[in-house]
Amino acid sequence: MAEAKQLSGAGLRGQSAGATALCTVGQSGAGLTYRGYDISELADKAQFEEVAYLLLYGKLPNRAELDAYITRLKGYRGLPQALKTVLEQIPADAHPMDVMRTGCSMLGNLETEHSFAEQHDHIDRMLGSFPSIICYWYRYSHDGVRIDTTAPEVDSIGGHFLTLLRGEKPNELHERVMNVSLILYAEHEFNASTFAARVCASTLSDIHSSVTAAIGTLRGPLHGGANEAAMEMIENWTSADEAEREIMGMLERKEKIMGFGHAIYRESDPRNALIKKWSKRLADEVGDTVLYPVSERCEAVMWREKKLFCNADFFHASAYHFMGIPTKLFTPIFVCSRVSGWTAHIIEQRANNRIIRPSADYTGPEHADWIAIEDRA
Amino acid sequence: MAEAKQLSGAGLRGQSAGATALCTVGQSGAGLTYRGYDISELADKAQFEEVAYLLLYGKLPNRAELDAYITRLKGYRGLPQALKTVLEQIPADAHPMDVMRTGCSMLGNLETEHSFAEQHDHIDRMLGSFPSIICYWYRYSHDGVRIDTTAPEVDSIGGHFLTLLRGEKPNELHERVMNVSLILYAEHEFNASTFAARVCASTLSDIHSSVTAAIGTLRGPLHGGANEAAMEMIENWTSADEAEREIMGMLERKEKIMGFGHAIYRESDPRNALIKKWSKRLADEVGDTVLYPVSERCEAVMWREKKLFCNADFFHASAYHFMGIPTKLFTPIFVCSRVSGWTAHIIEQRANNRIIRPSADYTGPEHADWIAIEDRA
Repeated sequence: MAEAKQLSGAGLRGQSAGATALCTVGQSGAGLTYRGYDISELADKAQFEEVAYLLLYGKLPNRAELDAYITRLKGYRGLPQALKTVLEQIPADAHPMDVMRTGCSMLGNLETEHSFAEQHDHIDRMLGSFPSIICYWYRYSHDGVRIDTTAPEVDSIGGHFLTLLRGEKPNELHERVMNVSLILYAEHEFNASTFAARVCASTLSDIHSSVTAAIGTLRGPLHGGANEAAMEMIENWTSADEAEREIMGMLERKEKIMGFGHAIYRESDPRNALIKKWSKRLADEVGDTVLYPVSERCEAVMWREKKLFCNADFFHASAYHFMGIPTKLFTPIFVCSRVSGWTAHIIEQRANNRIIRPSADYTGPEHADWIAIEDRA
Repeated sequence: MAEAKQLSGAGLRGQSAGATALCTVGQSGAGLTYRGYDISELADKAQFEEVAYLLLYGKLPNRAELDAYITRLKGYRGLPQALKTVLEQIPADAHPMDVMRTGCSMLGNLETEHSFAEQHDHIDRMLGSFPSIICYWYRYSHDGVRIDTTAPEVDSIGGHFLTLLRGEKPNELHERVMNVSLILYAEHEFNASTFAARVCASTLSDIHSSVTAAIGTLRGPLHGGANEAAMEMIENWTSADEAEREIMGMLERKEKIMGFGHAIYRESDPRNALIKKWSKRLADEVGDTVLYPVSERCEAVMWREKKLFCNADFFHASAYHFMGIPTKLFTPIFVCSRVSGWTAHIIEQRANNRIIRPSADYTGPEHADWIAIEDRA
């Protein structure tokens, strides 16, 4: 979302709330690195599972480690019957982020983290099972089918998600785009959901509580959900010219336009060019002549009129759409990715913990005299 | 928990993270006020529902308002069938805070907050139904019964909880002690769980996400749970002299002793004297000659040896125990109370919002060069 005003102090903006070795955001105005690796290089050369390993275990895995890691994650795709029963209780019109939040929370009842020594097992379990949770609920509530969530024919987490959603293995292009998308969304320093996870973890609470807090925080329209909002906007327009007219009208009416600008980046979002390229490839694949040109025109007009750039979310909207992903599942995909960053931060918080307990400026009455209930107005 | 060291800066200690008109903690080293009213006066003169109303609606209710409010809360005690089915999936050995977190999260799927204009309805629903959620699960998983959670014969939230737990209306003393306890735990400024709720709310997420985040945060042993830990300690000792010997040994071994000291209060916790008085009354009622003397001796020894005072949690342990409340339900009672403070903070955050998104000090590598997987160690 475009955030033009910079209210000094409010929302802890620009204030350090701790230390991290995981990520730099916008240090030169535009850059993004995970443990020192540039996001462009990771998006071009890595698999998401490799990036998750980097974040969680502190180094890039060698071939044997990566193969073993992928095998381990695949082994975590099945859901306990009690969790499936819970997901079956959630209606089709529920908010999919409420489903993710409840699924993660329920998992914590069934597979409780009893000691921090277990943390990596639970994290890998989440990485393996989150696509299962959202797709099991989606397919049951929308199509009335109880799917097998293991999908042994596909290795990657992105491919797992698409296979469960569609009932068949995706082509190579789609698996590749999901992979890039998961890498781009994996980690982003002390954003609100990650910070919520760290606040929770700082009480030495368990990993499911911390991730549940993060999911609920990502649900907010000022945080996750911008790609969904962008999709809901651009899908209404049937040509680039119409998009330009409508954007100009929205700007004139000072309406919010989602998918542009960023709280931290000042010049550009390094993730935009990376996903835009793949959105174009998908547009060519499906023979699109509307949505991609509409998206490009929005980008041009917003830059021309407001010097606002596309953030990571904007071209994610068209990319996901070209792959047939329902709009309301966009933010749950974000969860399947960001859980890697959240949990890396939880590990980091636990390793050097102090409870996060700030103070507040008091703005209420100095002293109030008790009034007996009979004498109250 | 005793917190002797004050690491400047860590955990945002002493740093303002926003404004509140709800509460002052330790402004004169010991005091606690809710909207200007002293905690001692509230604990002596008010009902918990009156305090919740004060926090949530900004003023003490008159008689008609309080009667209407209690009637409204009573109307919210029933649980939807889907939520009961979910609670029935949770095993008896689950962590009761995981149950509360999942119950609140599931409620958000079934009764989603679609607009902030609805916030008071959802808050009142939580106040009315949280005792139902924990007791329905507890009685089903432990006793195999599906209880009716409405309990129309009892008006107060504290009485509701005890009635569901025991299957009969409590006596006047027990209802009064629950009332005092809920008042003492209702609100405490920017503690970690409240701050987590505000971080979540600052993304404009929904109320169930925000409260779910708070419950998961309160679950941590550095935050909620100190009364449970105190109980588990004191119940081992059969006399005040044994307690003194054991405490001295624990101090010598530098073991953590729960229920003493506080991150903010420096001289005393104003809630201690208020609950201690009622713990004594309950000890007299049940003819206790062990647990209360043990508790008093712990207090004396900790002050004599370490100048550490009992916090709110310590005499809550014996008070709850005398009323026959299982130790593992102590922290869920805290939830049934603190949900009033959490939600008052969410309302306040929403009324003057900016997303809470701090920065971090980067401690990782400056730049890392990509290494092809075949060349990795």
